[in-house]
Amino acid sequence: MSVKMVVVGSIAYDSLETPKGKRERVLGGSASYFSTVASYFTNVGLVGVAGKDFEQKHIDFLKKHGIDMTGFEQSKEGNTFNWVGSYGEEFGDATTHSTCLNVFESFNPVLPESYKNAELLFLANIHPSLQIQIINQVKNPKIIALDTMNLWINTTRDTLLEAIKKVDILFVNETEARMLAQEKKFAHAVAKLLTMGPKRIVVKLGELGAMTATKETRFFAPAFPSLDVTDPTGAGDSFAGGFMGSLAKHGDYSEKGFRKSMLYGSAMGSLTVENFSVETYDNLDPKRIEERFEALKEMVTL
Amino acid sequence: MSVKMVVVGSIAYDSLETPKGKRERVLGGSASYFSTVASYFTNVGLVGVAGKDFEQKHIDFLKKHGIDMTGFEQSKEGNTFNWVGSYGEEFGDATTHSTCLNVFESFNPVLPESYKNAELLFLANIHPSLQIQIINQVKNPKIIALDTMNLWINTTRDTLLEAIKKVDILFVNETEARMLAQEKKFAHAVAKLLTMGPKRIVVKLGELGAMTATKETRFFAPAFPSLDVTDPTGAGDSFAGGFMGSLAKHGDYSEKGFRKSMLYGSAMGSLTVENFSVETYDNLDPKRIEERFEALKEMVTL
Repeated sequence: MSVKMVVVGSIAYDSLETPKGKRERVLGGSASYFSTVASYFTNVGLVGVAGKDFEQKHIDFLKKHGIDMTGFEQSKEGNTFNWVGSYGEEFGDATTHSTCLNVFESFNPVLPESYKNAELLFLANIHPSLQIQIINQVKNPKIIALDTMNLWINTTRDTLLEAIKKVDILFVNETEARMLAQEKKFAHAVAKLLTMGPKRIVVKLGELGAMTATKETRFFAPAFPSLDVTDPTGAGDSFAGGFMGSLAKHGDYSEKGFRKSMLYGSAMGSLTVENFSVETYDNLDPKRIEERFEALKEMVTL
Repeated sequence: MSVKMVVVGSIAYDSLETPKGKRERVLGGSASYFSTVASYFTNVGLVGVAGKDFEQKHIDFLKKHGIDMTGFEQSKEGNTFNWVGSYGEEFGDATTHSTCLNVFESFNPVLPESYKNAELLFLANIHPSLQIQIINQVKNPKIIALDTMNLWINTTRDTLLEAIKKVDILFVNETEARMLAQEKKFAHAVAKLLTMGPKRIVVKLGELGAMTATKETRFFAPAFPSLDVTDPTGAGDSFAGGFMGSLAKHGDYSEKGFRKSMLYGSAMGSLTVENFSVETYDNLDPKRIEERFEALKEMVTL
């Protein structure tokens, strides 16, 4: 069976400490977060690599969510990408204590046949040349979205520029927007990014929410004002999973549809950070998604 | 004739340089910006002090806008509050080269009788003990709003806390919100401020726009994505002038009314910064206000 949406990204084990507690070797990585969240909306296939240490219970977790694992590869040699970090009281950027890429270092993403007709493709934050490699494998996608990070903006700018030329939607945070556009003012940065390929930009604004812009439109989705953040890891990938997942579900690619999806993105980001890792999704009542969506909708209704 | 709204604040001469040019001794100060903007919506009275150097043309400018000047005082001795500053390419915080308080140093605001029954009172950023002094002179206002700054949060915190206990709406920026609440997380800061007196908080978010919160509600008003900023001075006071002015005009103090006023605040802030000082209002076609309001409304309509 072919899948409606594909995500290509990292699968990781995270060991982390936040003011709310500690976890050792919990499931992390952009593809894990994205696919778990998106599974509440659509039929999603994952492309990613894990190592010989990857536990069956995590494969079971992903499968239980109905995620298509045809593109999942488990290496018999190396270990899973491992990140160790901590968050201070402000829950801002994490402090990284160690990053061991392990099997992710030689990640060579290949799209299974059953993924090639996917309608939506999300290229999570990986090397831009791998992102291009995937773009060249899909047949006729309606929406290609790409996420990136400061590392690629600084080290492989030209390849990244080539990649974003080929996508419909670019995900960045505020700092990345300015860096990538080489514009100091936010409004100028957004305007410039919209001349660089993507028809739409989604700018993640952390605690404030997220903004989406086309050449003609702007829309702000507030963050849900949660007082109970446990672990901010994966907030951005969960936002993207909710955004892309709901797009896949409702299929409305009009401005109105994108705006609705921005609120689903914000809803999912806020649900993820209430617990460590993907623990929110161990047993999530889907009613909570609609409740959070409705609460956010109320915040943007004039 | 009694006035519908009163503003108490500074009247200044600003000399400034931005990437777009230079101006010497142009009209500035929170009360000037606020009253000029609010005059497009309602009958506003100003309380402020200028010096012997204050030019007739500036008095004429304010009077031409229909601003009630009963509370305007011109000293025969000192000079007008004078600020010299500059903005870099990012148009972020200004660099102050000199601040001469002059007659503003001994500002002792007194409400004229005809102002005491005003329905709305805006206490622009002045010493919190003066703000309290004014609050004690109004008779039965429906809305008291207060703006402040990091200086008072740091130096006269207790008096400021006393002042904000007495107001309905508190205006702060994001940094001030965290400082005043002594909370590092934004959501926590907002929640705490709402236990300190005001029923509503308006947080100015610079280039991103502004957010308003009550204990039950949140609403984000985007900034108009102008690519043509000339002088950011007065953006916050213009926001407040449009917000409070439109509240005075439509008289709808429901959540819906406040949200509408947030968009008028954003509209006026964006019009002000298109030109130096209050030059936008030399000859503004009021249709431009409605056009900008409609453009912003479109950005928050799901």
